[in-house]
Parts: sequence; C-alpha cells; structure tokens
Amino acid sequence: MARQERAIRTRKVILEAAGAVFDEHGYTATTIAMVLDRAAVTKGALYFHFPSKESLAQAVLDEQLSLGAVPPQPCKLQELVDITFVFGQRLLSNSLLKGSVRLAVDQCAPPGVDHSGPFRQWADHLVVILERAREQGELLPTVQPRQTVEMLVGAFAGIQLMSRALNDRNDLAERISVLWGHLLPSIALPGLLTGIDREPDRGVRVLAALEAADVEPVAMDLSAR
Amino acid sequence: MARQERAIRTRKVILEAAGAVFDEHGYTATTIAMVLDRAAVTKGALYFHFPSKESLAQAVLDEQLSLGAVPPQPCKLQELVDITFVFGQRLLSNSLLKGSVRLAVDQCAPPGVDHSGPFRQWADHLVVILERAREQGELLPTVQPRQTVEMLVGAFAGIQLMSRALNDRNDLAERISVLWGHLLPSIALPGLLTGIDREPDRGVRVLAALEAADVEPVAMDLSAR
Repeated sequence: MARQERAIRTRKVILEAAGAVFDEHGYTATTIAMVLDRAAVTKGALYFHFPSKESLAQAVLDEQLSLGAVPPQPCKLQELVDITFVFGQRLLSNSLLKGSVRLAVDQCAPPGVDHSGPFRQWADHLVVILERAREQGELLPTVQPRQTVEMLVGAFAGIQLMSRALNDRNDLAERISVLWGHLLPSIALPGLLTGIDREPDRGVRVLAALEAADVEPVAMDLSAR
Repeated sequence: MARQERAIRTRKVILEAAGAVFDEHGYTATTIAMVLDRAAVTKGALYFHFPSKESLAQAVLDEQLSLGAVPPQPCKLQELVDITFVFGQRLLSNSLLKGSVRLAVDQCAPPGVDHSGPFRQWADHLVVILERAREQGELLPTVQPRQTVEMLVGAFAGIQLMSRALNDRNDLAERISVLWGHLLPSIALPGLLTGIDREPDRGVRVLAALEAADVEPVAMDLSAR
C-alpha cells in the first residue's frame, strides 16, 4: 500500500514537472531529459509511468478536466460560471494546467496525441450541468445546451489565450466576467440574472471556500447546507 | 515601375509561402530553406525583403488585419458581424491567413516576434466600428465598446481554434453564427436583432458580392447605393 501511494505521488510529481516544461517550451522542444531534470526522478520511474513523450503529453492533457472541479450549487448556471472562474484562477498558478492548456491550444502536437480531447471532454462535462439547469427551469426556452457549451468552451479557450498574450493572464478573471456579462442574458431566465455572481474575484472566493472546507470538491455539496 | 511591381509580387509570393509553412510546421520547426522551396524564389530575393525568420513571421502576423476587410454597411453591427464571417471564410483557404493565425495563437514565437499584435490590432480596428454603431444608436446603453470587442476577439480566436481541432474548421461558420446568436442580444437594440444577418453562409455571400463588384473592399461603400 505504501508502495502504491509512493507510485501515485511519483506519477503526480512527473505530471507536474511535465506540465511546467510543456508550458514553457511547447511539445516539440520538450525532451524527456528536461522533464527528468525538473521532476528529479529516475529515468526508470518516469518510463514506468510514461513509456514515451506522447504518452506523457496525453496524460497531461487528460488531467485538465479534474482541475476544474467546483462545489455543486443549487443554481446550476452559477456552478457553470464557477467552473470557468476556478479554472481561470488555477491557470495562474498550476503548472500542470498551464501545460495542459498549451498542449490543447498549440498545433504542434504529433498525430499520436489527441489535443482536441480537452475541448470534447469539457463540452461533454458542461453539457450535463446545462441540462440540469434546463431541468430546473433556469434557461430560456431557446437555449440548445450542446451548442451553448461548445461556444462557451471555444470562447473561454480564446479569452485565456488573449489574456496570456496581452497580459500574462493577469486580467483573465476580468475577461471571464465580461464574457459572462455578454452570454448570460441569452442563456438565463431574466429573473436569475442579478442573482448569479460573476464578479471577477468569484474564483478566488470559491477556491478559498473549498480549502476552508478541506474536502474533495466533487464530494462537496454546498446546496445541502 | 515594372521592377517595383515585380518586387511587390515577389514579396507577396514569399509571404504566402511563409504563411503556408508556418501553418503546417509552426514557428520553431520552420526554416528559411522550407520557405524558399515553397515560394520558388532565390535566397537573395527573400533576404532582400526579409532579413530573418523573425522578420518574416512578423510580416505574416502584420498581414492579418488586411485580410478581414469587408464592404461597409449602413448598420455597423452588421459590418462587425460580416468581418467575423469573412475572416472565418478566408481562414478555410488562405494559407497566409492560416499561418498568421497559428503564429498569433501558438506560444512558440521567440521574444523578437510580437504575437500579441493581431489581438491588439483587431481590437483597435473593431472598436472604431462599434463606436460608430453607438453613434448611430444601434447599441444598448450598457455596452462598453472596448470591453465588448476585446471579448469578441478573444472568443473568436478560441472558436476558430476549437473548430480546427475538432473539425478542421469545416464547422467554423456555424460556430460563428452561434457565437453571434449569444452575443447580439447583449449588444444590439432589441429592434435590430432580427434584421442582422448571421446565417452561417453570410461570409460566402459577402465575399461573392465583393468579387462580383471587383473593387477594393476598403474603397467600396454599399451603403451609398
């Protein structure tokens, strides 16, 4: 059991190092040696978990969704908004996430790496939340959840990109807030608009609440309080 | 004069070849030799126009805005919508534009190349149109043109990226239409909403009208007809 825990921790250390190196250098320029150096693990340990650079990149891409977890909310549109703010906030400091986003956005990845994966996974994840919002009567009747979430995922990808290019992502939270200011009136019932919190510091506050509660976000249900 | 015309044509041939190579291989993997090979010009001709790979990349980036020109419209919001559809349509076939967009979006560019330039230039260009729309009374009073166009430029960048990753950009026009369906209600006066054409084939139709008229788009004023 202790050995298994160590293996899980080693895998995590490698992924975080790989994320940082992919973020800084991109897929093409990254070498296994650079990741080894950053992670300070043995070659054997790395190859035990990841037989190739492709598999390492794929694992970094696959981690993205888990880093967007937030506490459930009674208003499902609020939960959707929260996911974008928390993801944006984590993008400021989490190297694994930065690397994962760069891999998804760069065109450099070889055919063996599915860099469209995160786009699909995010859309599949968020459409479930928007369908819940519909069931709860939060949406305008004209909303087509699949169309809306695909637009949201694409728009978010570009907005974080522009924020990085212009401002090293320092204004990302403000830009997410502006995005929601433009999108919510076409999605939410008018009566909900003033109740949905889309202040730029929303991500900071949700993360602080998560840390204070010190529980797994997926298992936490603030709506039951 | 003939010599000057030839120089302009050669420069264009080189830029188009460079755009294609940057689009396929990204900044890092592109070499001057690959561009020479594609353009079928002499090394001397290329270095006369572009002393380095950096300067070539910068010139490809700087061409982006000129490829978004559309005929002016009496309704300035329609003109804004048209720019996105025409740009999206040109992205399907114009190698220079594809390369330019890849350079702007990839993080690979070296410090000497300002890959945030197109984001800034687009925002500066579009804000003028949105300000005109405001003067003409087309906008909701809550719209802040600079905020709105920066959001639009970022969202567009991501939507074309997602369309490329998932579908080789074949559904880009539909995605642009969905984006406008979500944004316009927060921007335009309600009475304008049904009059603004955001059908997915808008870009094809505007380009066909441009070609039929066979004039420079910047000099063409459909509103005067």
